[in-house]
Amino acid sequence: MTLTKKQIKLINSLHSKKGRSENHLFLVEGEKGLLELVKSSFKIQFMVLNEIFSNHEIVQDHSNQCFFASELELNKYSTLVTNNFGLAVVEMPKQIDFHNPIGITVVLDGIRDPGNLGTIIRICDWYGISTIILSDDCTDFYNPKVISASMGSFLRINHLYVDLEKWLNQFPNVTKIGALLNGDSLHTYNFPETGFLVFGNESNGISKIVEDLIDDRVTIPSYGGAESLNVGISCAVFLDNLKRKF
Amino acid sequence: MTLTKKQIKLINSLHSKKGRSENHLFLVEGEKGLLELVKSSFKIQFMVLNEIFSNHEIVQDHSNQCFFASELELNKYSTLVTNNFGLAVVEMPKQIDFHNPIGITVVLDGIRDPGNLGTIIRICDWYGISTIILSDDCTDFYNPKVISASMGSFLRINHLYVDLEKWLNQFPNVTKIGALLNGDSLHTYNFPETGFLVFGNESNGISKIVEDLIDDRVTIPSYGGAESLNVGISCAVFLDNLKRKF
Repeated sequence: MTLTKKQIKLINSLHSKKGRSENHLFLVEGEKGLLELVKSSFKIQFMVLNEIFSNHEIVQDHSNQCFFASELELNKYSTLVTNNFGLAVVEMPKQIDFHNPIGITVVLDGIRDPGNLGTIIRICDWYGISTIILSDDCTDFYNPKVISASMGSFLRINHLYVDLEKWLNQFPNVTKIGALLNGDSLHTYNFPETGFLVFGNESNGISKIVEDLIDDRVTIPSYGGAESLNVGISCAVFLDNLKRKF
Repeated sequence: MTLTKKQIKLINSLHSKKGRSENHLFLVEGEKGLLELVKSSFKIQFMVLNEIFSNHEIVQDHSNQCFFASELELNKYSTLVTNNFGLAVVEMPKQIDFHNPIGITVVLDGIRDPGNLGTIIRICDWYGISTIILSDDCTDFYNPKVISASMGSFLRINHLYVDLEKWLNQFPNVTKIGALLNGDSLHTYNFPETGFLVFGNESNGISKIVEDLIDDRVTIPSYGGAESLNVGISCAVFLDNLKRKF
């Protein structure tokens, strides 16, 4: 099947957050992403594949959802620099309910870079963290760069956008741990059984209003000259230390 | 002072590895990089600053090395997407001698992405690792994207490009630790006092020829669904575990 103009218009609209929100749809691009997607419970509206892959295993199981285009056309519709495989138009799952925190939940305050958010999603998935809470000013979870950087892990991580100050105040009995400079050493910190682990913005760290709600300030010990670590790196080191405890 | 055509040609040549190798010079760009640079022992040939910064503290101490340009011109010479501050043309320091390994040395086998190398340099600096050994097919240490991603840490890390197989074979008594899948758990691994910690290529991991020289295969334990972690993330988690031992 070949694409209709309406479908092309729809795909292009999903490059922007506005288009994604209005349609409750987002894009998954590239072979690895699509292979994981079709095995998940996410609902696919349709896929556009490079016509040279008309016998690919994905097509055999999803022939009624597959449209084909030349590689040149495909690259016009895709947000990737090069996409020689294909893309899928996917329905956003329902927002999760989150009333009863169990274990450690990762909380992001003002993460702006899609590559960083994607990396954090992948790290959370590696370390078995199931839920990420995002402040309203974080970058969009369904931004194609986030989806792509998450390397398929977006399929296994629940997320919720919230007014972070209000939201944290709903849980007075849950320990709020802040990844901050000048805190206690992460290497000797005892994580609580249930807690929110908060990471701040790439340039400015945790916002003042959220910092005031932090119970435990925790810092990755430094042994050299670098002033800071990237937020994705920091998240991985925190979660590794969390898991080492058990 | 304004720039000569020869200087402009020189700056542009330093965008490429060929130009950098021929001239033994490289570029440092942006305010943070320049501020750290002028405090280091690196030799600066000259700097080009945005003319609006003619009274900046850098100019006061280095007036005979400073040239000025409009922001528009500066952006033409710079490799950054936007550079509103300035750049410096810097002499490459002499290659280090490395005959007597002490402690843990980070070894990179085929790291191709400049952003990843820059991140690894920054992480090594954070964890007090002084030397990185790079296989000849790693990306160029002096690539402007590496310098920029290292956030000034390139000033504090020694490096050496080598034929990795030959080089590792020179140290039969030093433990070669490989960051590999399906190895012993990093969480229970006892690092030797002196060792080479080897990280492999972004897609293919450690090359077969180097893998054959590995003594200890070590793996970051996984608790979820992600198949792998980015090499920079992996390096940070390894070095954090190394330091927790002491």
